[in-house]
Amino acid sequence: MKKNSVHICESILSLKAYQGGKPISELQRELGLDEVVKLASNENPLPVSNKVRMAIEQAITEVGRYPDGNGFELKQSIAKYLSISSEHITLGNGSNDILELLARVSLCHASDEVIFSQYAFVVYPLVTKALGAKAVITPANDFGHDLDAMLLAITNNTKLIFIANPNNPTGTLLEDAGVYTFLSKVPSSVIVVLDQAYVEYLDVNDVTVGWLQAFDNLVITRTFSKAYGLAALRVGYSLSSSKIADYLNRIRQPFNVNHIAQSAAIAALADEDFLQESISSNRQGLIQLANGFKVLGLSYIPSSANFIAVKVGDPSVIYQALLEKGFIVRPVEMKGYLRVSVGAKNENEKFLVALKSVL
Amino acid sequence: MKKNSVHICESILSLKAYQGGKPISELQRELGLDEVVKLASNENPLPVSNKVRMAIEQAITEVGRYPDGNGFELKQSIAKYLSISSEHITLGNGSNDILELLARVSLCHASDEVIFSQYAFVVYPLVTKALGAKAVITPANDFGHDLDAMLLAITNNTKLIFIANPNNPTGTLLEDAGVYTFLSKVPSSVIVVLDQAYVEYLDVNDVTVGWLQAFDNLVITRTFSKAYGLAALRVGYSLSSSKIADYLNRIRQPFNVNHIAQSAAIAALADEDFLQESISSNRQGLIQLANGFKVLGLSYIPSSANFIAVKVGDPSVIYQALLEKGFIVRPVEMKGYLRVSVGAKNENEKFLVALKSVL
Repeated sequence: MKKNSVHICESILSLKAYQGGKPISELQRELGLDEVVKLASNENPLPVSNKVRMAIEQAITEVGRYPDGNGFELKQSIAKYLSISSEHITLGNGSNDILELLARVSLCHASDEVIFSQYAFVVYPLVTKALGAKAVITPANDFGHDLDAMLLAITNNTKLIFIANPNNPTGTLLEDAGVYTFLSKVPSSVIVVLDQAYVEYLDVNDVTVGWLQAFDNLVITRTFSKAYGLAALRVGYSLSSSKIADYLNRIRQPFNVNHIAQSAAIAALADEDFLQESISSNRQGLIQLANGFKVLGLSYIPSSANFIAVKVGDPSVIYQALLEKGFIVRPVEMKGYLRVSVGAKNENEKFLVALKSVL
Repeated sequence: MKKNSVHICESILSLKAYQGGKPISELQRELGLDEVVKLASNENPLPVSNKVRMAIEQAITEVGRYPDGNGFELKQSIAKYLSISSEHITLGNGSNDILELLARVSLCHASDEVIFSQYAFVVYPLVTKALGAKAVITPANDFGHDLDAMLLAITNNTKLIFIANPNNPTGTLLEDAGVYTFLSKVPSSVIVVLDQAYVEYLDVNDVTVGWLQAFDNLVITRTFSKAYGLAALRVGYSLSSSKIADYLNRIRQPFNVNHIAQSAAIAALADEDFLQESISSNRQGLIQLANGFKVLGLSYIPSSANFIAVKVGDPSVIYQALLEKGFIVRPVEMKGYLRVSVGAKNENEKFLVALKSVL
């Protein structure tokens, strides 16, 4: 029997399949090392909070039952925490899920355009390409977003703008005033996504949630994967007009956030001590790494997040040399730079020693 | 400032947002009842397996780290269990995730057609509508799938066929021979999804996995939510040609299955005792409910799954009356029928008493 290939959409054929890293245990065996330190995925290096541990242990008895598809209790917790109404909240299987849902509700034609910055979160080009829409990439301004260039890039075809703030992989930060002015100049038919995955590390009085009242086209995305330390569990959320939340809910998988994840996120949100420890440990780690880079004569981009981009000559050579010593960092698409996640104090220390030895 | 609405895709505007049920605790409070028995979502009524509990407890220390995006270990476990190679496996956030991915890789034009049966899993029409494709619904044959009618419904525009076997919400089963003949007649360019969410309850020698060698367009989907008892955790998978697996991996969210879920699924797959107990408890429960229906003079559809459809006159009246007594069942789109999940022995017993009282 002659076999024809199955029908697959054109936009899918141009994509590559996700190639994840090897599990740490696998890598350890391959490299013949006793320890591998991963400073590659901007994870929280603190041990799990006891409140989260207890919440998960308690939720285990319920694993036979479907999760609450409305995420009622978690949305109530977030709503209370942010003093907003829960109709503005959409839960996602990580904020990645929300970013994809936003692309899927707003990008419908090959002519639809998505604007994001030259150095930006890898998911933005991926979701754009998967939907066969057009990525409009604006050049960076001293590594950060150039909001003026983004405004100039808007056309009648623009449907979506992604802005990570603090930005990944640069760690740069836009001032609130500039973002507010930008929002007031974007046509209200264009969805602007303010991706705040790293916002908690700023530890400042947060004014952006209040902007939702002024801008119906604003979507703020947040995650429990960073400062809250729940990357394994995949919980993110968006804040938006109730209208946009309604659209997202139409295509969201009903049980996108699992029950253990919902329970853990509720506990994490109530654990202010853990959050403060995350913030303070990260602040110290950033200083530790920055000072280490200075001593080594390396330049770096001052960071507002839980990672730092450092200039190292030939990043692929340094990346490989570090890997062989058991340190995983992230090669990024910024010429000359490697991105290093802030680890625990002793991890940062050992990393700086290893870095020195491979320069 | 005059506000224009944001740009939203046409196909989204015609959808409704997911309206989940209320959490049990909420419902209990509203109804003023001490106990609510949920026989609505075809969940596993057994208490969590100890092996799963231990696997989750052990995985808690890792909640700060991202899950293995390749699901290496879980895929290895499934591959070994089914004696296939892991390149044929795609993991999903529940099999719902896989069903949606299949629709998204194959449905690209408004003219694309998806075939499924009159009585079928609710997700099939939902994913079709969300993508703006055309649902071609074939009439049921004595509640089950009419494979001949499905063959006749195939056109040049057909991209996807969904067949649940055993079927939900009918519980009906197609014989292997009939499905094999059907597969051999479907053009090899059309993806055929054999949704086997309830397959473990059949407890028969499984020949369908072997069919993958003959049919490059066959996709088998399975779940840990039913006989394995992990509905809360969202783990499903598909078996397909490595080519289709590659396409699915291109648009799958890299961390779609969370770490706790992966760990629990590995433990569940190794817990043959729990699986056998699920199967045997379900078989006894089906007999218990069927006998109860006979005593009450009610007709029902003999079921090969973990639920049973029973004819009750006006289902919406009976549904409401049962709810007020603390029993949640599922109204389905089959005239005159309610779908009842098989509960634990005492739950089935109490349910039959309640049903008698409201007839």
